[in-house]
Order: sequence, then C-alpha cells, then structure tokens
Amino acid sequence: MNAAGRAALIEAVKAEALACFGDARGSHDWDHTERVLRLCLRIGRREKADLFVLRLAALLHDIGRAEEDRSHGRRCHAEAGAEKARVLLAGRGLPADLIERVVHCIAAHRYRKAVKPETLEARVLFDADKLDSIGAVGIGRAFLFAGEVGARLHDRDIDVEKTKPYTKDDTAYREFLVKLRHIKDRMTTAEGRRIARERHTYMVDFFARLNRETAGVL
Amino acid sequence: MNAAGRAALIEAVKAEALACFGDARGSHDWDHTERVLRLCLRIGRREKADLFVLRLAALLHDIGRAEEDRSHGRRCHAEAGAEKARVLLAGRGLPADLIERVVHCIAAHRYRKAVKPETLEARVLFDADKLDSIGAVGIGRAFLFAGEVGARLHDRDIDVEKTKPYTKDDTAYREFLVKLRHIKDRMTTAEGRRIARERHTYMVDFFARLNRETAGVL
Repeated sequence: MNAAGRAALIEAVKAEALACFGDARGSHDWDHTERVLRLCLRIGRREKADLFVLRLAALLHDIGRAEEDRSHGRRCHAEAGAEKARVLLAGRGLPADLIERVVHCIAAHRYRKAVKPETLEARVLFDADKLDSIGAVGIGRAFLFAGEVGARLHDRDIDVEKTKPYTKDDTAYREFLVKLRHIKDRMTTAEGRRIARERHTYMVDFFARLNRETAGVL
Repeated sequence: MNAAGRAALIEAVKAEALACFGDARGSHDWDHTERVLRLCLRIGRREKADLFVLRLAALLHDIGRAEEDRSHGRRCHAEAGAEKARVLLAGRGLPADLIERVVHCIAAHRYRKAVKPETLEARVLFDADKLDSIGAVGIGRAFLFAGEVGARLHDRDIDVEKTKPYTKDDTAYREFLVKLRHIKDRMTTAEGRRIARERHTYMVDFFARLNRETAGVL
C-alpha cells in the first residue's frame, strides 16, 4: 500500500472508530483517543516504531469501552476492542500479519492486563495511554471522573484501604495514591519514562498544594 | 455571652447547618463550607474582623443550596440561605443586631449578587467563598463540576460565546476563561487579594500546561 492508500485507510478507520463512541463525553471519550494518538506519534518517532501500526492501534484502542460499560466492567474493553478491531480491519482487506500487530497493541494496552505488550508498538501505546492519566491532563481526568460518579472533591485523610472506588466517599486523591503516582514506574519505553517523570513531578506538587490549600494554609 | 457559651453555640449551629446538606457530595458540599470557614478565619484574623460573626456566617452561608437546586436555579441560594439563617439564629435566642450582621454576610456572598457586601465580615466571607474557586482547589472543583454535568475534559479551542454551561460540550476551561480568571480582580480585602494573586498564577499555569499536554507537546 502506498502513502496515499495508507492515509485514506487511516481516515476510514478513524471514522469507524469515532462512530463507536457515539456522543460519549468524559474521562474516556474520543478526545482521550486523540490525545493518545498524538503521544503515540511523539513517542513512536523517538523510539523508531512503525507509525502506521501505531496510528491504527491508537485510533482503535478504546472502541471496546461501550461493551465494558454495558457489562458493568465484566467484559474487558481491551479484549472486546481487540476483537472488534480484528473484524474491522479484516473488512478493509488488510493482510493478516498487519492486523495481528495492531490487534496485539489493543489487547495489551490495559493497566491491569492479562496480555503483556510484546512489541515495540504495543509498548508505545501502553505508555501513551497511561501518560494521559498523569500530569495536568491526569489531574483533570481524575476530578472529572470523580464528578461522574458523584464523589467528593478531596479528603486528605482518606483511608485508601476502606474507601471503595466509584462511591460518594471516593476522591481523585485516592486514585492518585493507589494508582496514578505509580504510573511512572510502569513505563515500558525510554521516552515514555522521560515524559512520565516530568508529568509525575507536576502531579505530586499539585496534590501537595491541594492538601495545603484545603487546610487553609495556602 | 462568654467564650464557652459562644463555642457551644457555634457547635450547635454547625450541627444544624450540616443537617441542611444531607449526604450531598461534590463542588458545593459541606467540605466546601469547612474550607470557606478556614479561609474566613485566616483572612478575618488578618483583617481584624469579628470572628464570632464570621464563624456563624461561614457555617451557614450555603444552607440555601438545596432550595436553589430544587428550584433549578430560580431561587437564589444566598437569599434562601439568609432567610433560613435568620430563623435558625432567632431560634437560638441571639440578639437581633447580631443576627442581622450574620444574615447580611450570607445574603451578600454570591458572585452575581444583588446585595453588595457592606461590612468587613461580609467582605471576608465573599472573598473566602470565591477563593475556594481558584488555585488547586478551584481546578479540582471545576473538573469535578464538569464531571457532574457530563461535560468534556478539555477543548482548548472552545467558543465561550456559543458553549452553554452545564452541557456536554462545556469544560472546566470555559469556566476558567469566563469566570475563574477574573476572580482575583473581584476581591474586597487586602488579604483576599494577596491569596487570590498567588492562587491565580498557579491556575493560569495549570491551564497553559493542560493546553500543551493535550496538544501532545509536553
């Protein structure tokens, strides 16, 4: 396939992927996919990954979200998305080996994953997806998600063992303590680690500041 | 009334105020009241305000929220809260002039207000309430509120004229552009202005950073 053919295919796949999101808004909407795509290209260029595989994988990585939401979390969106992507790409007449390279990225992108990222492209997508959970964008998403589930703004003394996620006593701070502050240690590429360290430092400072402001001392 | 009598009264009023919130969570819950109280005391000490009046006013300033929410915004929470506070404090046998000093603070604390804050204590409460909308806590609240109404995470090119608040295309960034970035110019006390400038700078940097991160360049 030449460059023009690849560009046309990307656009067609993008339209199909977008349609899977309906008018969903929030922490895992189409905007998230576009941010992950931009990070994939940035990291992928540095790591010399196959950008065609990466573009397809990034666009399709969350198309199984609706299935996960409908099943109340029982169906894994990475698994559902990988299966949907395989069908979608086969319908476009792509070679089987290319399809499997894209599908592996999608199947392996989840944080709590059964499938580990085994290729360079899968590692880049994994890192890009996680990076969107930290830094300023990660802060925004954590509070947006808390608002979606009717949670509290903040509780500096939150008991992370006793507080259940998705409840009204949950907070963005619990998500930070339990998950987000560890993301920098989960990166799988050198460029991912570099970006993660910078975003991590900003996020740590934000929550330290939030603790001081809410105590009335800043 | 002696110091012990005042302390007991504060505790009793606090319990009555808390009861007005039920199990509400989110951007205007009881936690907000407690943060505003802490800021009132900090600013009030510096400005040499009457801390007894301030404590009562801070605890009671949002007790009209449920009325505003039930009326879908037609009933103003500052007005409803002032009336409820008058009845509540009269029930505790407080002198009429003290009651009116507290009630004025509550009636005049709103940003888009008909009643202007005319006393030192009313100005302190006004500033403290607005300060809770900026800085790290303001960032968190803006995204939490966006999540509560099912809005988007971010749109750096948002058209603030065309985008309606409380809709799915709304964002914390619109709230920042239209309202939050102007709060530092609305402060009515010297200490309020000082705190606002510091929190304002942090918030401006946050959104500049968010624009760069979401563009994939940071």
